[in-house]
Amino acid sequence: MSKNIAILGSTGSIGCNALDVIENLGPPYRAVALSAHRQMDKLIEQVRRHRPAAVAITDPEVDPAAVDQVRKLGSEIYHGPEGMVRLATRPDVDIVLAAVVGAAGLPAVIAAVQAGKTLALANKESLVVAGSLLIPEARRRGVPILPVDSEHSAVFQALQCGHAKEVRRVILTASGGPFRCATREQMESATLADALNHPTWRMGNKITIDSATMFNKGLEIIEACWLFDLPPSKVEVVVHPESVIHSMVEFVDGSVIAQLSPPDMRTPIQYALTYPHRAPGVSRQLDITKAFKLHFEPPDFDRFPALAIAYDVATRGGTLGAVMNAANEAAVAAFASGNIPFGEISRLVGLTIARHQVQANPTLDDLTEADRWARQTVQSLCPARGPAAAMTH
Amino acid sequence: MSKNIAILGSTGSIGCNALDVIENLGPPYRAVALSAHRQMDKLIEQVRRHRPAAVAITDPEVDPAAVDQVRKLGSEIYHGPEGMVRLATRPDVDIVLAAVVGAAGLPAVIAAVQAGKTLALANKESLVVAGSLLIPEARRRGVPILPVDSEHSAVFQALQCGHAKEVRRVILTASGGPFRCATREQMESATLADALNHPTWRMGNKITIDSATMFNKGLEIIEACWLFDLPPSKVEVVVHPESVIHSMVEFVDGSVIAQLSPPDMRTPIQYALTYPHRAPGVSRQLDITKAFKLHFEPPDFDRFPALAIAYDVATRGGTLGAVMNAANEAAVAAFASGNIPFGEISRLVGLTIARHQVQANPTLDDLTEADRWARQTVQSLCPARGPAAAMTH
Repeated sequence: MSKNIAILGSTGSIGCNALDVIENLGPPYRAVALSAHRQMDKLIEQVRRHRPAAVAITDPEVDPAAVDQVRKLGSEIYHGPEGMVRLATRPDVDIVLAAVVGAAGLPAVIAAVQAGKTLALANKESLVVAGSLLIPEARRRGVPILPVDSEHSAVFQALQCGHAKEVRRVILTASGGPFRCATREQMESATLADALNHPTWRMGNKITIDSATMFNKGLEIIEACWLFDLPPSKVEVVVHPESVIHSMVEFVDGSVIAQLSPPDMRTPIQYALTYPHRAPGVSRQLDITKAFKLHFEPPDFDRFPALAIAYDVATRGGTLGAVMNAANEAAVAAFASGNIPFGEISRLVGLTIARHQVQANPTLDDLTEADRWARQTVQSLCPARGPAAAMTH
Repeated sequence: MSKNIAILGSTGSIGCNALDVIENLGPPYRAVALSAHRQMDKLIEQVRRHRPAAVAITDPEVDPAAVDQVRKLGSEIYHGPEGMVRLATRPDVDIVLAAVVGAAGLPAVIAAVQAGKTLALANKESLVVAGSLLIPEARRRGVPILPVDSEHSAVFQALQCGHAKEVRRVILTASGGPFRCATREQMESATLADALNHPTWRMGNKITIDSATMFNKGLEIIEACWLFDLPPSKVEVVVHPESVIHSMVEFVDGSVIAQLSPPDMRTPIQYALTYPHRAPGVSRQLDITKAFKLHFEPPDFDRFPALAIAYDVATRGGTLGAVMNAANEAAVAAFASGNIPFGEISRLVGLTIARHQVQANPTLDDLTEADRWARQTVQSLCPARGPAAAMTH
């Protein structure tokens, strides 16, 4: 059986790891289609190595000479955001690995599901924004959605030890990020460099900042509810700084099943590609020849308001997932460009959600509009509540 | 479907916990047959509560008045060791929970498998002594053997996350027992009270002393090889003093699946009875509202020679399992009655194994003879190597 993979976001952290996994697995696994935004040097290198049949370049302003280089290597080229959709729905693609960061990945993810492609989902925003559309659509078409996030991969694996109705709760582990032990004051004035200094995972900037605010875990709570058909009350979070246990499932009999491995994204990426089978991996092995400790502690809802926000969004649903995600993307961008202090990210998201008129059973247009409205709202809140003002909170 | 259970060893630690589980589960789970050795007060109380159809009393010298009390409660009575065999093979029994300690449980376990009963196995000695007979027999008859040991139950559960051929190794956790941090000198002169002071599990005396020498883990290594069809090289041990992770399975892709729960034998007992389903349990829930740590360290093969002995026995096979088990039972009895110091247990077992002429493909008679020979050998080694002499090692 052919295992032709399209990687949406091939030059990002997940994309690069996925290509590493595919190369190690060898045939029948093949990267037949790559999509990148603008990192042309990396893309050209990947095309040279993997010789994909097609490539999508979503940034319309990339250097035409670089595009030409890709073309000369034999790949068919698609342009712009709709190029990613065309890439994901090509007939020669069996599996779509959605590794684009943010809501930008949504149209291609929806298109992939509609085209009946197996979806390996690293783009958590797709479910947070449009779970209410995607999940029913995938069920209707019998399209498997295989989680790539280390946490959801762990839950997906642990769930195999029991039946869905026997699940008492899912326990998502969180590293706690760079500010696990920081005071509220230290967090308020944290710099971009502080926020990017993640203790266990090397990831892209957006997800690393999300890990610092714990919005990353908030997104994952909502994603878990959609993926595993659980109410928010059955999804809990425990802080586990070593990131060795990637998440757990507790069954009604009190048995907890956990998935462990040294932190390496290649392990969950590979499992999503080889499921329901397992193949020898390239990642580091759990070392039990030396003593080690694993720590667990409850998360601090006071210092990390993102968690309470996410539970509220997961409970009320509708357009709120789109609003939370878009507001967070806009606030993170404002923080990354130095416009607001770190502490303001969660406040801006909370404020935006508070102002939002929730719409139940949204269409894709409703979600797109909610996304637009949320970004605009954050923008409008930013100038008046700039760095100086924010510090008085 | 009826779930009529015979408990062999109902007055022991596992037996009492099993009755607790059965009572909590309610119908269709029913304790229809109980077997006890001599703890008549406890047995009468259990018969009064559970009204089993049949009871076996294996000690021929129990008080006839007590036996009469059981009879008056309406249970059919079987006597002596062969009574346990008759109990296990009754037509009204669906599941036999073998919770007798030591090789004494073997004939009833074999009879249960031959009678096609589902076997919930807490008696690890059955497989250590006669795995070469029991496993092929169970396979031939399609009889499920469901592990009750917390470690093997954990492995059994974790294996559901992959295929047998995808297992890289099984990692059995060991609490390390009461002497985990003791010096070799402290262990040599340890008293019975020291050896019985187990940090995490409340169990019977024999298994608690086995936990102190780590022969318990040695027996479990051999048991795991039989239960899961693994070579000894794929079964590893890690010391984990909190006994929260009960064991793990590492698959070829580097994913490790672990089963956790607060140490409570009722969890694995219940799973063996309800498998492939899970039911709400009576045991304590994993508490993630408070911070906690889990420690892991490699076992010390120098202070715990039982581990190296067990790997050797698992590798060479034949009659050696019967010899190791019988020698250990005899040595533990000698230690418990004050005849030998603690350090002598492992040495006597090692010496007995060294003197044994291994027989491949043994019959049940061969195993019985090896068991007898090993006990006699330990006896003969005991007087000449009494406490004083032993200390000079």
